[in-house]
Amino acid sequence: MIAPLHWNEEHQRVDLLDQTRLPVEEIWLNIETPDQMAEAIRSLRVRGAPAIGIAASYGVVLALRGRGDEDPYRTVLDTIDMLATTRPTAVNLFWALERMRRTVEQHPGLDREGLRLRLLEEARAIEEEDRRAGLKLGEHGLSLLQDGMTVLTHCHTGGVATSGYGTALAPLLLSGERGMKLRAYVDETRPLLQGSRITAWELTRSGVPATLITDSMAGHVMQRGLVDAVIVGADRIAANGDTANKIGTYSLSVLAHVHGIPFYVSAPVSTIDLNTRTGADITIEERNAREVTHGFGKQTAPEGVAVYNPAFDVTPAKYITAIITEYGVIHPPYEEHLREVVEKGRPARQEA
Amino acid sequence: MIAPLHWNEEHQRVDLLDQTRLPVEEIWLNIETPDQMAEAIRSLRVRGAPAIGIAASYGVVLALRGRGDEDPYRTVLDTIDMLATTRPTAVNLFWALERMRRTVEQHPGLDREGLRLRLLEEARAIEEEDRRAGLKLGEHGLSLLQDGMTVLTHCHTGGVATSGYGTALAPLLLSGERGMKLRAYVDETRPLLQGSRITAWELTRSGVPATLITDSMAGHVMQRGLVDAVIVGADRIAANGDTANKIGTYSLSVLAHVHGIPFYVSAPVSTIDLNTRTGADITIEERNAREVTHGFGKQTAPEGVAVYNPAFDVTPAKYITAIITEYGVIHPPYEEHLREVVEKGRPARQEA
Repeated sequence: MIAPLHWNEEHQRVDLLDQTRLPVEEIWLNIETPDQMAEAIRSLRVRGAPAIGIAASYGVVLALRGRGDEDPYRTVLDTIDMLATTRPTAVNLFWALERMRRTVEQHPGLDREGLRLRLLEEARAIEEEDRRAGLKLGEHGLSLLQDGMTVLTHCHTGGVATSGYGTALAPLLLSGERGMKLRAYVDETRPLLQGSRITAWELTRSGVPATLITDSMAGHVMQRGLVDAVIVGADRIAANGDTANKIGTYSLSVLAHVHGIPFYVSAPVSTIDLNTRTGADITIEERNAREVTHGFGKQTAPEGVAVYNPAFDVTPAKYITAIITEYGVIHPPYEEHLREVVEKGRPARQEA
Repeated sequence: MIAPLHWNEEHQRVDLLDQTRLPVEEIWLNIETPDQMAEAIRSLRVRGAPAIGIAASYGVVLALRGRGDEDPYRTVLDTIDMLATTRPTAVNLFWALERMRRTVEQHPGLDREGLRLRLLEEARAIEEEDRRAGLKLGEHGLSLLQDGMTVLTHCHTGGVATSGYGTALAPLLLSGERGMKLRAYVDETRPLLQGSRITAWELTRSGVPATLITDSMAGHVMQRGLVDAVIVGADRIAANGDTANKIGTYSLSVLAHVHGIPFYVSAPVSTIDLNTRTGADITIEERNAREVTHGFGKQTAPEGVAVYNPAFDVTPAKYITAIITEYGVIHPPYEEHLREVVEKGRPARQEA
């Protein structure tokens, strides 16, 4: 398991993996001030919704690093406001900073060090809760797999986007600890290559044997009988189980279906949106043509060619064998079982 | 019509379009020796089964360029053996070189220049026959399409993969001339991006509206109802209709099947190999890992990661709606109808 950052108690700082340097270099930055943390978030050195929330929480703690004569409460609240501006659309960022603000409000009258220790405790709790959720996703995912199996993955849903275990990668990252030997095929995931740049690095670094393929090879490796299961993450899961995820996920689900290979979505319960009735209600974001025509600074298509570049696609529930959450594995019919896990915090009865 | 190479009579050489430099630069290489031609074939500077056959034929002619005292027959036969090693799965390569070998055997006792002229005549005949076949492929392909349709293509099977008209692209390239308006989705075709580098370039230059997508988006555009037919080329068609073609073709055939979209293979009869009983008898060439890990001139995967990089996959006959040849459209059962077209030079009776 590789966490995207560590609280360094000796130096009262955060050691943070610079993800923009992957996969060529593994550089750990010493983050000692809230401004340095803000820069790391803004420049995508730390990325993935849960990891950004955790990074910002520790960024608040850094506001009280060392000695100072100013009002610590004022300093911390100003820092929270500053950190909230780093990524305008990151819901987890606001959620984590709101928890830090409530912590300040609920503990008036502390001295600087007392407040700092209380904030550090809260940041550690935010990190630990995410780690436990990842661990649970991993355990529930492993319950669907057997020793020696090979799992095909798409995009990056691993540890460094969270507190360490990830979502779709959690079973793979946990397998070694639990005495299971799993292997992986990793889709490179065009256009932004999160699979080759981050997933392949993280699995290899974690001792999980991983083989990189282009997205177009997934059908071929399934045809050759080399894949036992597909596990992907989710951007949003509709009330009926339809799932929006990185472009290419839908093709994988069709291929898995035709080859009789189980297709699993692994995501925290917070990804389930009961207000989205079906996949038809999900708007597909279209991204810049240059991601396709100028992959990594080099022109690979004629100037001015028309490009269609949807960021996501929607996999219909009928192609999803099961949805893995931190509360357990959800099986069809999803309409009923997803509502139960969201409203009662536990999977449908047949899973108990 | 853009041909991939021209015999340059004045300089007794081949002027060859370096397709690895497209779409940014249009560079023509002066090929003066068989070794240079072998390098061009091996490095995919000339690519596409028919174009490789034509290139190799002219490569044989180059063996007798300039003066020399050695036995011209021995020189030519050694050159044929050498050129046959350049691409292990390209049946057109072997077919064209076999014609050159028969030409040698059928014309004993010529002097160096006499043999050279006879070989040049044969290479030109191979090129011209291919050009006529391309025109016929286009006409037969158009008979399966209707005005206003959108065709999804994979890899590059256009003019510069052949002698000018192409195989799978022939209907699109001919559509304007024949008063039909067709549109295209073009798979970029990782790892070597022939779709974005060459197909998108060639279609755009030929006035066919083309939209570029990554390979992982094909399922999504089919799901949205944007594709009326898929047309791909073939590296080799087995006696039962199983077809080896660029990696990713198999995935497309599964996706087309599930979406009820016709899936056509368009290839000259020379691509049909009755000695290959089924797809299981086709050896899949594996290519260098760096095509995947350094595909954009920049390292995009961790150093030393395991990579699986098959050049081709095999599409089973059951997913192929029809096979378009220069003699007509072949429908299932392929076992019988492919044999008929190869042995009698015309499609099965039901097509007459």
